[in-house]
Formats: sequence, structure tokens, C-alpha cells
Amino acid sequence: MVRWPLLWARRGEAAAALLSRYRGSLAPGRGCSSSSSGSRGPDMDELLRRTVAALPPYESRGISPALREGPSQEFVDFYRALETDGRAALLTKLAADYGADHGLVSQLCGQVTEGRDVDALLQAEARLRYSLTPRYKLLIGHICRLEGGVKFLVDLRADILQLLQSQSADSPQLREMNGILKMLLSDWFSVGFLNLERITWHSSCDLLQKISMYEAVHPVRNWVDIKRRVGPYRRCYVFTHNAMPREPLVVLHVALTDDIAKNIQAIVQYGPSPERSEDVNKITTAIFYSISTSQQGLQGVELGNYLIKRVVKELQGEFPHMKKFSSLSPIPGFTTWLLEILQIKEGKSNQIFTELEYKEIQDAIEGPVLETLKRLLSTNEWVRSDKLVRALEMPLMRLCAWYLYGEKHHGAALNPVANFHLQNGAVLWRLNWLADVSPRGLSSSSGMMANYRYFLEDTNHNSIQYLRSRHIEASEQILSLAAQCQKSSKL
Amino acid sequence: MVRWPLLWARRGEAAAALLSRYRGSLAPGRGCSSSSSGSRGPDMDELLRRTVAALPPYESRGISPALREGPSQEFVDFYRALETDGRAALLTKLAADYGADHGLVSQLCGQVTEGRDVDALLQAEARLRYSLTPRYKLLIGHICRLEGGVKFLVDLRADILQLLQSQSADSPQLREMNGILKMLLSDWFSVGFLNLERITWHSSCDLLQKISMYEAVHPVRNWVDIKRRVGPYRRCYVFTHNAMPREPLVVLHVALTDDIAKNIQAIVQYGPSPERSEDVNKITTAIFYSISTSQQGLQGVELGNYLIKRVVKELQGEFPHMKKFSSLSPIPGFTTWLLEILQIKEGKSNQIFTELEYKEIQDAIEGPVLETLKRLLSTNEWVRSDKLVRALEMPLMRLCAWYLYGEKHHGAALNPVANFHLQNGAVLWRLNWLADVSPRGLSSSSGMMANYRYFLEDTNHNSIQYLRSRHIEASEQILSLAAQCQKSSKL
Amino acid sequence: MVRWPLLWARRGEAAAALLSRYRGSLAPGRGCSSSSSGSRGPDMDELLRRTVAALPPYESRGISPALREGPSQEFVDFYRALETDGRAALLTKLAADYGADHGLVSQLCGQVTEGRDVDALLQAEARLRYSLTPRYKLLIGHICRLEGGVKFLVDLRADILQLLQSQSADSPQLREMNGILKMLLSDWFSVGFLNLERITWHSSCDLLQKISMYEAVHPVRNWVDIKRRVGPYRRCYVFTHNAMPREPLVVLHVALTDDIAKNIQAIVQYGPSPERSEDVNKITTAIFYSISTSQQGLQGVELGNYLIKRVVKELQGEFPHMKKFSSLSPIPGFTTWLLEILQIKEGKSNQIFTELEYKEIQDAIEGPVLETLKRLLSTNEWVRSDKLVRALEMPLMRLCAWYLYGEKHHGAALNPVANFHLQNGAVLWRLNWLADVSPRGLSSSSGMMANYRYFLEDTNHNSIQYLRSRHIEASEQILSLAAQCQKSSKL
Amino acid sequence: MVRWPLLWARRGEAAAALLSRYRGSLAPGRGCSSSSSGSRGPDMDELLRRTVAALPPYESRGISPALREGPSQEFVDFYRALETDGRAALLTKLAADYGADHGLVSQLCGQVTEGRDVDALLQAEARLRYSLTPRYKLLIGHICRLEGGVKFLVDLRADILQLLQSQSADSPQLREMNGILKMLLSDWFSVGFLNLERITWHSSCDLLQKISMYEAVHPVRNWVDIKRRVGPYRRCYVFTHNAMPREPLVVLHVALTDDIAKNIQAIVQYGPSPERSEDVNKITTAIFYSISTSQQGLQGVELGNYLIKRVVKELQGEFPHMKKFSSLSPIPGFTTWLLEILQIKEGKSNQIFTELEYKEIQDAIEGPVLETLKRLLSTNEWVRSDKLVRALEMPLMRLCAWYLYGEKHHGAALNPVANFHLQNGAVLWRLNWLADVSPRGLSSSSGMMANYRYFLEDTNHNSIQYLRSRHIEASEQILSLAAQCQKSSKL
Repeated sequence: MVRWPLLWARRGEAAAALLSRYRGSLAPGRGCSSSSSGSRGPDMDELLRRTVAALPPYESRGISPALREGPSQEFVDFYRALETDGRAALLTKLAADYGADHGLVSQLCGQVTEGRDVDALLQAEARLRYSLTPRYKLLIGHICRLEGGVKFLVDLRADILQLLQSQSADSPQLREMNGILKMLLSDWFSVGFLNLERITWHSSCDLLQKISMYEAVHPVRNWVDIKRRVGPYRRCYVFTHNAMPREPLVVLHVALTDDIAKNIQAIVQYGPSPERSEDVNKITTAIFYSISTSQQGLQGVELGNYLIKRVVKELQGEFPHMKKFSSLSPIPGFTTWLLEILQIKEGKSNQIFTELEYKEIQDAIEGPVLETLKRLLSTNEWVRSDKLVRALEMPLMRLCAWYLYGEKHHGAALNPVANFHLQNGAVLWRLNWLADVSPRGLSSSSGMMANYRYFLEDTNHNSIQYLRSRHIEASEQILSLAAQCQKSSKL
Repeated sequence: MVRWPLLWARRGEAAAALLSRYRGSLAPGRGCSSSSSGSRGPDMDELLRRTVAALPPYESRGISPALREGPSQEFVDFYRALETDGRAALLTKLAADYGADHGLVSQLCGQVTEGRDVDALLQAEARLRYSLTPRYKLLIGHICRLEGGVKFLVDLRADILQLLQSQSADSPQLREMNGILKMLLSDWFSVGFLNLERITWHSSCDLLQKISMYEAVHPVRNWVDIKRRVGPYRRCYVFTHNAMPREPLVVLHVALTDDIAKNIQAIVQYGPSPERSEDVNKITTAIFYSISTSQQGLQGVELGNYLIKRVVKELQGEFPHMKKFSSLSPIPGFTTWLLEILQIKEGKSNQIFTELEYKEIQDAIEGPVLETLKRLLSTNEWVRSDKLVRALEMPLMRLCAWYLYGEKHHGAALNPVANFHLQNGAVLWRLNWLADVSPRGLSSSSGMMANYRYFLEDTNHNSIQYLRSRHIEASEQILSLAAQCQKSSKL
Repeated sequence: MVRWPLLWARRGEAAAALLSRYRGSLAPGRGCSSSSSGSRGPDMDELLRRTVAALPPYESRGISPALREGPSQEFVDFYRALETDGRAALLTKLAADYGADHGLVSQLCGQVTEGRDVDALLQAEARLRYSLTPRYKLLIGHICRLEGGVKFLVDLRADILQLLQSQSADSPQLREMNGILKMLLSDWFSVGFLNLERITWHSSCDLLQKISMYEAVHPVRNWVDIKRRVGPYRRCYVFTHNAMPREPLVVLHVALTDDIAKNIQAIVQYGPSPERSEDVNKITTAIFYSISTSQQGLQGVELGNYLIKRVVKELQGEFPHMKKFSSLSPIPGFTTWLLEILQIKEGKSNQIFTELEYKEIQDAIEGPVLETLKRLLSTNEWVRSDKLVRALEMPLMRLCAWYLYGEKHHGAALNPVANFHLQNGAVLWRLNWLADVSPRGLSSSSGMMANYRYFLEDTNHNSIQYLRSRHIEASEQILSLAAQCQKSSKL
Repeated sequence: MVRWPLLWARRGEAAAALLSRYRGSLAPGRGCSSSSSGSRGPDMDELLRRTVAALPPYESRGISPALREGPSQEFVDFYRALETDGRAALLTKLAADYGADHGLVSQLCGQVTEGRDVDALLQAEARLRYSLTPRYKLLIGHICRLEGGVKFLVDLRADILQLLQSQSADSPQLREMNGILKMLLSDWFSVGFLNLERITWHSSCDLLQKISMYEAVHPVRNWVDIKRRVGPYRRCYVFTHNAMPREPLVVLHVALTDDIAKNIQAIVQYGPSPERSEDVNKITTAIFYSISTSQQGLQGVELGNYLIKRVVKELQGEFPHMKKFSSLSPIPGFTTWLLEILQIKEGKSNQIFTELEYKEIQDAIEGPVLETLKRLLSTNEWVRSDKLVRALEMPLMRLCAWYLYGEKHHGAALNPVANFHLQNGAVLWRLNWLADVSPRGLSSSSGMMANYRYFLEDTNHNSIQYLRSRHIEASEQILSLAAQCQKSSKL
């Protein structure tokens, strides 16, 4: 499972185009060894020989010929010109043939195991460490020095991630290369090297256009929309990186309110007019209502949590009296999970609904209850019947609380958004009924949204607790709903 | 010998102060285990336990508790408050006790050596690679995320380098830590993450003040001086890094001339007045007459060569017809080497001078020839006698050509400036007599300077040749002088 | 008729709102002396007494009490709060009661007329000049020092211009105030105090939004549209002024082409994609295809011609080989003029069309020729019939050439766009058939557009010729068409 | 007397050079009509005919040929190339021959005087007003549109002011031209068009260098000095104007203190180290300790008072709790005035000193009392004798209080600094003994300094009072000292 949560990454235009080509080219029966890439094989071998330098011997590590721009640029140009399957072939070859020198590793391993004095041991470990460097890491190191090189590598990793998801292209070497690249990107995109920028209506048009495009949580419909999201009672912050100018890496939208928000439409559709000026006295609360990342290739690189943290500081500087910090978050996957539960409990509806609830639902719909209910839930039509909405409130809230609090994957919260905020040290604080009645909100979250609240003095402690013991800090409301669910719904 | 050539690093003020304290505290008989640091011992152990987190297990690498700012900041504050010997003790302890888990490494080495399928092998290698991560690397990773954290680490490495130069503090673990830190800094200060800035008289005062202070090759005497060095017919470029704002990392001074310069005073003392405007038609040549680095802690991180390369591009953009690129460089160490040679050849002066030369020298001075000559050379007084200057020109030029071309250290050019430019792919092009008659120039280089010329189309090839086979590309003048030296001077 | 030509001023939002209120309030029967404003009368008198300081005596002119912010701000606030008729009343009162001291003027006039020595004469003139200063000029001088004061005065002049157009409010004093204000604004918005800014897709969103709104010549439909107009092969420049930050005063759109453009849709609708990069070799020509001003209150202040001039310099700097500069301009008023001509020549169509032409037109339409033709022309339907389009080309081109070349108003070209470019020294160079087939283009210019070409070495001479002797410099095409028209159309 | 007070204008380098040439060239016997300028006479006439356009007729005012850059530039170049006496000749000719059309003025005056209806009267006045425009005003209007044109005009006015001070060049026409130019510059340099910039150590070097040069009140000795004056507990603000980029027009230095300062050395020599950070709680008071203007040609244009006003707002924004605002000002001219008084009162010392005071002075010095005292005061030596310092404190404080409060020139305070602050609405608040013991401070102010305090709510009222009735608002200390002086010193 991809563990870059909440931040539904939307890759840049180029990568999107690439993706569509992938889908075409990686159709069944057209593996990487297909004729087209096969015919390019010799070129590739030749290219790789020319462009991937050998690792210098341990003794002269760190001293590289100064101006090796040519070959790296050649690699970049060659790669860019390739179609999807060509890229797959090249990456596979690079990963397989230009990794570490396994023989040398094995030999040096032998030297480490012998009992030796500290100096010799550390020397042996250092040599071993160096020998474990895949040869392609040198190429990567050269590419990152080219103009636009870092962006190229980020996009390259996006390609690798795509490949890894297709069975035909997956390979241990590719997975290794992905790991190596992720580690490097994590180093380069350390928070110390990121620039925090506030985006306003005075920011540059290209930035605002990108931010509109990247917004994955609550899509921006037009320029009136985006103007409101950077206007009064709103804040929009991004991280950028010097090596990728004019490219927002991760975007956080904040609403400034007087209490913790329970409805998203009030924020994104009916916000204050862009001409109004803010009344500072009405601002006591910051609602993080959207966080999106734009670079698929930075999957797994921690950016979102650092952005939240920096923005909290920024807001505290601007509003010293600000007291409450909370997300207003979607619950992606809940509707799907709910429909599965209903399927599983076919004929055992009393394990899901109380008798009274079942009756009210029965009153609100026509036809066989569970079947009809499933249909109405999967088509979002249930929301049109006030009666049904009332009847479903309690059971769905209960089920959702359980879904967020009780359902786990490898010990962590199953829901990726929950997992993200809990890792950051937030508290699972409130579930809101009819909080997002957009088609998207109904389809994914049955119209509910959650507040993950950040009690600043506790986030560190909570984060450690969650990561160590998988303990989820939750409010009374959540705990009580989840408990009811366990009792009445017998999940 | 420090292998950060030409770039006589001048550390910042703080580090300079630190250094002076070092010198005091590391006096004989006051080792790191002295009572004062001994008494802090328990605190340190306690601190390190608290602030250096354990490496997460391989499986959950990459997921760190989000907001671990506190402990890292605590380490930073604790370290900053320490005196020199305290720092030495803390670093030594950190390096020794919080390195890699040698037992685990050894165990995983065993698993690598067995014959296995690719997947298992790569997995084993990945685990091994991870296990070789010293535990303190995690701390470093956290510190670099703090505000001012990167600068702290750069200064920390400067401290380590100082320690390694004192015998009492040197240790294999410290050396390992130095290597780890250098590698990280090399990653972070990759050229893709550096900003090139041109410095002019319109640049900010604090930058110009720092650049004046850092100028180590031809010291800046006052503000008139620095105004000229950023004025017409001059260019001054620096690299800066986002994580260390307002801090020039490496500075390159260029003079724009109509031919390759042979005298430094003409550039730094009698340059064109700051009010004159440039006549583009008179500019055909760029002379790199000074390159200085400011951060001792970035020793060994390649910055100077990349700066030269970027500046060449910049100048080509500004002056499309620019044809010649060359350094005008000091030859530090030559006078010392020369005096040693004279010492060694005591009584065999015919192996150094021709008969005629010897006579002319004899005519020019009073008293016993070699002894007097050595005195005059070591006191810079020889330059006051025109006769002696004329008499010494040929033999000293010859010897210096040999010194630059023939004297090696581990196969590379002994002279660090030569080694720097040859690594960059420059040609050892011309030796200039009476090129720097400042006291500094006379003391270190007997008044000579060298031009290392950059033929742009050849630098890549030259660099590779030099690094591979230690071949030095040199001009006719140099080769001929060096050959004469070999013949007549019998070195 | 408003003589701020081509630059169809579109006033800012505030002024637009004001305008709509005007229209309501200045309805018949509700003059300025209506009860509502009458009841405010005393307040106004009181306010003006308080806020409009008396002119200091001649001797202490130039020394004003330092911090007179209060009263000026009071006037501004009072004025802003007024409805349209209140504003009319206040302005009328201010103009009438706070002008120059006519008695003093008359008295000083007497002193000038007497024969005197130079010193006394100049003194008398200076006193007279000073006495001719209307008292309200002092108020204006104070307001311009307030924050936002200059913008207030620009908007105030827009109000005055509106008033002058309504008969009930026109007055000699108001006209005088308008003249005084225009002179002051001309001084303040001298070209030396304007900033030239190039607008690109990287410019700030609010600027681009304003530029889209202000574009009056070829309206911007959406953000794709505006992105293209600041993209490759396009340039967009504005003048801004420090005292009105973030407010483009006049906007010039340029297309970069390889020849003089003859069709506007090719430029504004089907331009190159925003992702393409420019091929400098294909750029030889600059087409000024739109110039718009945004401040109604700056009517008559020369900005457009200076902007063109500055942009020409800018383009020559960027494209040293650029050879041709030309406008592609609408011919507003032509269709109206044409329909009048057709009306006048009722029954004398042979004075307009040749026999052959008349026949072709007759063939192309049904029903009574002239009547039908007028209908088709006024509804833009003629353009749907290829036959009719062909039949009309010659006669309409001929008539239009005459309209531009021959029709005069006070000796100057009747068409305001023509007058603007001819004043700038351009040549009436080419008439283009079917050059703008948008509804707007058809309605105003019967689909034709004109190129006014700027031969840079001649503009100065042409401008002087045109201003002095009303001589219009025109191309062969124009002269020949106009001559034919005079001959065959007998206008 | 030049009435640009306190702001001891220091003209730019160019003007300074010009001045020195003046002094040379205007030596006795070499008048403006000397042979050299005489020989240029015809050229000048020719040039002026070519470059100074005639005023367009009233009807076509406001429509000027578009691109008249050439002639104006020619005038500028011609003028710049002239020596001092050539400039004098050209300006004199321009002022004399290209003024208003006196005949026309006289004629139009006749039309005004007749009794007429409003419309006709206003028309006649408008024509008269227009006819009073000197022809050279058109040239000025064109020059201000050139690049660097505004700076040229400012420097031109500096030349005129110099000329007016030399008897041989003074003329009514030149004086008129000075007045016209001053009025125009006052319009252009209205506060709405000025940019406020805070200067810090991060500001550009050229700005800081200029600010150091322009500092006339307490000269900046070196870069350590200027670094302190823009460092912690200090603020430095300037006004700049878009038409004169990189040129500070007026500079205000402020010290942030916890009480009203009484000694200038504590501020400019022993201020806090540039590395200290400010403790906001210790900042309750802003001391304006220096205000300097840099453009001689802006003499009489109000800038200093507006700068103070803007800075007060800026400081209130930064330090909401700031309570006290005051200057710490020199008293230039006092020592000279004092020596005159002593001269006048020769033999009547009892009208200046009390008997006791006289005795103490006599005890402190040797030789004839008044004579010796005058010598000691004019050589600044008195300050070396503690005894004398004590003896003089009361009488000098008393005399100085009277000098500031009682001595008038045309009804205004004689002391220009006092006049400046009183016009701004400040209160003459405190006299400080031994407040500036620098040679400059002793020579001009006998070591005393005055605080002019700004009580913000009263400044407007005070300013009006002072300007209208010449009433000086002063503190108890001042009033009491001045009263004693009147009584005991019988001035």
C-alpha cells in the first residue's frame, strides 16, 4: 500500500501524459522485452556504458573529474525522448546492470566478520559501505547538478513508481533503485532546504494556476474559486525548493474561523467575498481543510507534516491569540468499506442497525431494505430523502467512528488520512454529519468529514505514542460512537 | 596535508574564536580526559541518551515521529555552550558510542555472503547498508531541519577537522564521523541547490563586508578596495545556499582584460576607477584572480570548480566574443620549498645554478653566496636589488616550473593551487616573474604567479587525463623551463 | 464627443458603480438643486469652509502648516459618502465659491498694464500668476499627499467629466476646475514618473485580472485567453505610477510576427500555444493590436503615445533586428458613418457604387437594394453571403479609406483612432478587408481594420506635420482608394 | 538668507565640483560677459532657438507633438558640457529671452478688467493664466520626461541658486525662473510620490555610502560608524523618488531609547554593538538625532517634515507603546551669536553675567576676562577647564535659551533648526549642557543641544499657531531660562 496519505498526489502535466502512454503501452502481451524496446537494446547498452561512470576506487572517492556534464545530459535527453516501454527497458537495465558490485560486497563482508581492532573494523565497514553504493548513484549525483536535473529525477522516480505497480515491470532491482532514489530525495528535500511561501491574489499567475490544478481534495472550479481560497479569512501556503523553481511541492489551505468548522461547503463555496477585510477579533481557529502534493515522485518524502508545523508557527506569529488548530478532512474509502460491510452482513442486518434504526430506514425507502439501501448509498441518492438522512445519521456515524478508530492495516489506522494526522500527533476529535455533500464527498465519505485536532503541547507525545504502540488518541464523541458500534454492530 | 586547495579557507568569526580557545585548551598535559570535561561526563552521557534516538528497525525506516525538534535543539544548545575540550569530549563520545551496531553489521555480513537469489541478495544488501548507518546520522538528519541547523553542522565539522589535526583527539571513530558528515554536506551542497549571485556595489553591505573578510588570497584593505573589486572591469560571484542565508560559501573574483594578466598589483591596487564605464570592445579575457571559501567545515566539498564553471557560462552570456579564460594564481609553498632545496644542495650550488648565474648572483650580493641568498630570500630583501632580481630570474623561474610540474604528492601535483586547477582541466600555461611583489607574494611565491589557462573545449579531457594518469598538460614555456631545470639543476 | 481616442477608457469598478448611480439620480426633474442636496447645503458650506484653506498671502506662499492631514481627509471621506447628486452639488459649489479671487486678479491686472522696469513687471506678473490660483488648488495639493489621495483625485476628475456631459450640471466653473485638474494630473503623470512593466504569466494575478477587465478593444473572454496574450510571440506592457500601486494606467498589447498582420482573430484567438518557445528568427515585426487605458479620470493626459514609444525602445533592445512596427487598429464609427452616407445618398446610389458594383450587390441580395443593404449592414448579416462580401469589398474599402483620410473634425482626422496614431507620427498604411469579423468588429468597423505604421525615423516629422498643417501621411493604397472614392462616390 | 533649515544640504559630487569651478571662474574681472562666454553667444542663441519650442496657442494647449526628445536632449547635453560661466550665460539668456510674452499678458490683462459674465471672465482668466507661462516651462516639461531628466533639473536649480548668491549673476528673470522651477519640483516631489525606505546593514552598499556622505549633522567617520547607525536601537529612513533611482533625497536618523537623550556622543559614538539584539521593553522613546538632505536643488521643497511624520507612523506601527518623540538637535550659529553679544557688551559685562558668575569666570581664567573668554570660546578651549565649564553653565544656558526663544528674523525664529521644528509643531523642550563636545558641536553650539519634542496630538495646533502668530511653544525650563536672561542679561 502506498503510504503517502491524504496527499492524493496529482502529478504534473508531463507525468500525466506519460501515464496515459503507459496505460496504452503496458497492455497485456506487450512486455518490456517487446520488439520495440528490444530493437533499441544495443543503443541502450551503448548509452549506459558511455554515461554511467564506474565508481572510483575507495581511495579516490570524493574526487570526481570536474566537468562531467556531457554524459549526464546525454542520458537525460535520451531518456526524455523514449516512449513508455523504452523507459521501462532502460530503467530495468540500469537497475539490473549498474547496481553494486556484489562480488566486492561479498568479499568485503568477509573482512568485516573477522575480529579486528576498532580502526581496522571501521575501515572495513567504511569500505563495505562504499562498495554497497550502486554504480547508478553516481549518475544520479551528476544529473542533480544539471539545470532542471532535480526535477528530472523526481519525474524519473514517478516513472519507477508507476512501473512498480505493473506486475510485468516489477523487479527487485527496480525496487532497490526506488529505495535509493527515495532516500536521496528525502535528503535533498529536507525541511531545512525548503522555502515557505504564502500565496495570495498578488502571487504570480502561474503559481496560482498550478495550485488550482494540484488541488485534489476540493477541486477548484474556476478563478473566482481560487481567488476566494487565497482571499480574506483564508491562508494558502506552499513549500518550494530552489532546485525546482516555480513549482509548489505541497500546498496547504487554511480557513480562519471562530470555531472548529463542521462543513466544507461553507468554506470552499460560500466563503467571505474577496473584497472584505478581516476582523482579527473573529479569528480564533485555524482549519486545515486541504493539503495536496503535486509531485508523484516525492511519494514517501515527508513534506506535509513539516508544512503543517511551519504554518502553525506562521499563524501563531500573525495571530498570537489563536487557540484552536484542527483539520477538516475527508474520509476516503469509507463508503466502499461501508458497502462491503453491508454485503458481508447480508441477512444479519441486526448486527449493524438497532431494531429502531432498521424500522426508520424501512419507512424511508421502498423495496427490499438492504439491497435498496446499498443502491441508494452507492448512487448518493440517499441524501435526497430527509427521512433517510435522519434514519442513517446514528448508524453511519457509529460505523464511521469504528472505521477510523478500529480498522487497522499493519497495526496503523487503515484510513490514510487518519494515519497521516495521527502520525503528526493530532487527536481524532470529531465526526461531522452532512459535512461534505458534494458528489465527491458523498461517494468517498458518505458525506461525513472528520476533524483531527492539533493540541500543540501534546502532538509530540501523541505522535510517539501512535508510532510506538499504535495508540490512537480520540475524543469522547469518537470513543463513545466506536464503543456503541462494537456493541451494537458486532463488527 | 589539507587537500582543499587554493581556497585558503578562512572560517567565520565564531569558528576563529573557537580556534583560539582550542589552542589554549589543548595545550600539553590537558587532554580531553581532563577533570573539567570529566566532571561533565555524566551530563553528556545523559544528554546523548536523551537526544540521539535509536535507529528504527529496518522495516519502519523512513517513518519518524513527526515533531522531534526538542531533543535536537537541546543537543545544539548543549554543544554551543561547551568550551573546546568539552566539545572534544562530546564529539568523541558521540562518535564512539553512537556509531553503527557492529554486531548487527557482522551478523548481516554473514547473510550476504551466502549464495542466494537476486531478490534475497538485494534484500540482504539493503539491510546491511541500513545497518551500516551510524546512529548519530539520525541526529544529524534532525539537526539539519532546525533553523540554523545546517550552519551548525558545517561549524561542527570545522570543529571535528580541528580535532583531527591534534594528536590527542584523533580517533578512528572521529575520522569516520568526519567522513559521514562530509558525504552529507556534499549532498546538501550539490551544485543544483546553490544560488549564483553576482556581487556589485549595489549588493547589500553585509555581503560585501563578509566578502572582504573572507578574501584570503589578496586581502582587502578597505572599502575603496572592495568597491574597485566589484566595479567596472571586475566581476565578483558567490555561491549561496538557502539553508545558510546571507552567507557567501565561496567567492570568485574576476578581472576583465584585453590579455592574460601577468601582474596582480595592476588588478587589485591600480584598477580602473569605480566611476568609469566599461568599453566592451576592450574585454576579451577573463582572469580569475582570487577564489576563496569561507566555511572551514565545507573542506573537501567541491564548490570552487563548479563556481568557476558557472561563472564561465555567465561571462560567455554577457560577452559572447570573450576568448580567453585564465587564472592568475599564487604559488604558495614555493619559497619554503626553494629554501629547502638550497639547504639540501649546500655546497652543490652548481646543481642549481649555471656557472654564469652563480657569478651574477655573487656580483649582486656580499658575503658567502648561498647563505646570504637564503637570508635575502627568506626576508624578501632580494627584491630591492635590481641586479639580484635580474640574476635570479632565470634560475627561479626554472626551479618554480619544476616545482609546479615535477613535484608530486601521492601522484598529484604537490602545489595545492596547481592541483586544484589541473583537476578542473586547466593547462599550466605561464609563469610570471615579479607578478606579486607584496610581502605576502614574496614570502610564499618568491614574487611569481602562474596562469592556469582554461581552454574550454579541452577542460573535460584534461581533467580526466589528470585524474586518471596524473598527466599534467603544460605550455611550451613551462615544459621548456622544467626541462632545463631537470638538466641543469639536477633535482 | 469624448476625445480620448482609441483608448476606450473603462473606468474602475468604483467609478462604474458611481456611474450607474448617476444615471439613476440625474433623471429628468431631479437637478442638483433638488431637495436632497439642498438639505445638505448647509453641511457642505460648513465643510468647505473648514476644509478648504485660504490661499496664504503671496509673501508666505510655499510655507504651509506642516501636518494638515485632518481637513483634507475629512473632505475625502465626506465626498466618498455622498450620492451622485450630492457630489454634483459639492463640486459645483467648490468650483464656484473657492476659485480665484477675481477682485484681486482684476486689481493686479491693473498693475501689470502700467509701463514698468523689468523687476517690477516680473514681480507684478508673479503676483498676478499667484492670484490666478484657485483656492481649491490648495485642497487638491493636500489631498494628493494623503494615502490613496492621487487615486481619489483621478476618480474625482472622472466624476467631473461625467457631470460636464450632463447639461444640468455643466458650468463654466466646473469646466475651469476640470482644466486645472487635468493640468495637475498631466504634471504628476509625466512620463518620467511612470514605471514600465512587462506583464507575463508570471506576473501577479491581480494585475492580470485587471488587464483582462480593462481590455476594451478585443475583450478577454477567459484565463486561457489572457494567458495567450502574455505568452510566446506576444508582449504586454503597462505603465504604473508609484502613487497608484498595483494599478495599470495604460496597457499595450503587441504581437510579434514575421509580417504586418492583417487579421485580428489570428492574433487573439488562434495564437501560438502558451507552451511553445519563440523562434527569434521569425520575429521581424511588432504589431500593436490593442491599447487601452483604465482611468477615465486621466482622459486627455498623454500616456498612450509615450507607452508606444517606450515599448518600441524595449523591443529594439530585445530584438535588434526588428524592422517593422505597425498597429492593427479598429475603425470605430465607420459603420455608423457608412449608414448615414447610405441614408443621405438615398436614391443617388450611383454616387456611391459603380454600375457594376451595384449590379453585383443586387445579385447578391433580395428585395430593394439600398434598404436591404442597410439592414444587412446594421445587423452584420451581410458577412454570411460570400457573394455579397465580394461585391462590397471594393466600395467599402474605398469609402473607408475616404472616411479615414478625408473626414475631418476641427481639421483633425474625425476617426479618433486615426487621430491618435497620426498625432504619434504614424502613417495611414493599409486597410484590411475582413480583418475583424467578430460581432464587435462588424458593428463598429464593418469588419475592416487599419494598419498605422510607425517608420521610426519619420514619426517626429510626421507628427509635427500633422499637428501643424493637418497633413495626413498615407500609403499608395490609401491614397488611391480615397481618390477613387472622391471620383466615383462623389462625397 | 537661505530658508532651508537644519537640513544642511550637501550637494552631490557633481555640484560640488561645479561649485569649485564657479569660485574660480567668477573671480573679479571675469564676469558673465567675458570673452569665453561671449564667443559662445551665437551658439547659444542658435541652440535656444532650436530647442525651446514656442508655446502653442491657447486653443491647442495640451496637444504637443509626440516625440520631441531630440531637442530637449540636445539642450541637456549642451548644458552639461558648459563650464560655469557658460552655464551662467545660458541660464541668464534663457530666463531673459524665453519668459512669458509680456505684451500678450498686458493685452489679456486689459480683457480681464472689463466687467463680464462669469463664463467670459473665467475664459479670460484662463487665457491670462496660460499667457503667464514662461516659454522655458515647456522645455522643462520635456526635459523631465527624459531619462535622468528630473535629476538634471534638480541639479540645474542648484546651479541657479548658486548664481543667485553671486551678485554679478543675480537678475529678476533668474529669480523668476528659480521660483517657477521650485514650484514644479514641489509638485513632482509631493509626498504622495515619494517612497519611504528603511536603511539597514542589509541595504545596498551604494546607498549606505551615499547616506554616510550626506550625513552633515554628525559626520560618519568610517564603516563601523555607519554600521552602528543602522544597527540595533537605531533606525535610518530615507525618501526616494522613482525619477531619481538609488538617490536618497532626505535622510532621518533615529535612536530608540528609554528616555529623551541629552548627549549626542552616547548615540553616535558609544551606541550598542551591532551584534546585540533589541529589547523591545526598553524602547519607549524615539530621538531624531539627524536629518540631512542631499539635493541642493530641492532647497525649499518640503521633505524633512513629511519624512518625520511618516517615520513617526512607522515607529508607532513597530512599537505601539512608544510614548515620547523628540529631536536632539544642534544649535548652529549660537557660538557666533554669543561672540557678537560679548563684543557688543564690551565693558558692560554686568549686562550678561551676574556678579557671582563673573567672579567664578574670573577665577577660572587668566588675563583680561572678556577678551580671554572670547578667545577660549572661539577656540573651544574653555571646555578643558572644569572650573570654567561650571562657571559658564548658567549664563550660557540662559543666553542660549534666549537665542532660541527670543531672537527672530522676519518674525520667525532666527535659528534655522528651531524654525524647522517649530514649523513642524514641535515644542522647544529642553536645553542640554555639554551635549555635544565634538569640535563641531563646540564651534557651532558651544557644546549645547536642544530637544524639540513632538507631542503628537498638539503638533498640528502648534504648527498653525507658530505660522500664524509666531507663537513659540516652549517648556518651563526654556521659559524660565529665557526670562532670567531678559532680566539679568538685559538683551
